[in-house]
Amino acid sequence: MQLLRINHLGIAAPGLDEAVARMARLFGMAADHLEEVPDQKVKTAFFPVGESTLEFLESTDPEGPIGKFLAKRGPGLHHVCFEVDDIDAMVAHLVAQGVRMIDAQPRPGAHGCRVAFIHPAETGGVLMELSQGG
Amino acid sequence: MQLLRINHLGIAAPGLDEAVARMARLFGMAADHLEEVPDQKVKTAFFPVGESTLEFLESTDPEGPIGKFLAKRGPGLHHVCFEVDDIDAMVAHLVAQGVRMIDAQPRPGAHGCRVAFIHPAETGGVLMELSQGG
Repeated sequence: MQLLRINHLGIAAPGLDEAVARMARLFGMAADHLEEVPDQKVKTAFFPVGESTLEFLESTDPEGPIGKFLAKRGPGLHHVCFEVDDIDAMVAHLVAQGVRMIDAQPRPGAHGCRVAFIHPAETGGVLMELSQGG
Repeated sequence: MQLLRINHLGIAAPGLDEAVARMARLFGMAADHLEEVPDQKVKTAFFPVGESTLEFLESTDPEGPIGKFLAKRGPGLHHVCFEVDDIDAMVAHLVAQGVRMIDAQPRPGAHGCRVAFIHPAETGGVLMELSQGG
């Protein structure tokens, strides 16, 4: 039961077109994948870096999680997602430790994986997502 | 000339002892390494995750970069460092593109590597560090 790798780094962006143009200009990188996730009220662009991915998130609704984050904090680093080897055991362990969870049980995420978010009050202000599979 | 991997993720923390205790409680992880970097006015604790490292940063001076960040934004994700294969070529490319740099030339970083920071105004609010070697 451990953190295997940084699966992705979530970055809140006012606009995906601007973020995609910026990654091309700075690093000559093209988005691997574009996706809308209506459930999370975001459109996303993915840029693979090593075993991880940069995931730029544009809000499609000011009342969604990224919309609220952008209004409060502005654009920038939003969350980090760790790949784990046994998400059920990890979440059960965290709940047993009394750790406050956004998701007290793993739920379906993008690309067929299962995910759970830990409340940032428990992690020193870092929004952490756990993910397995997909 | 490309981004090879996330070298580390910098996390601003009010106190390292608390951050180290939290990583043990949440994930059963011990710090790989503790270091004071007087130049940056921080003490750091390193936790390897896959090919990357989580780097918790405690300020040793309220006027240092992490001290100012904590006062303004509170604890949480601070910067992302990418390993690159040719930092001289990458920085020269960025400067030629007119990208505003915190370091217009690579400078010595921790562990014998060479680093350069890009100004967050150029990256959509994400403080990005480039690193090679070490």
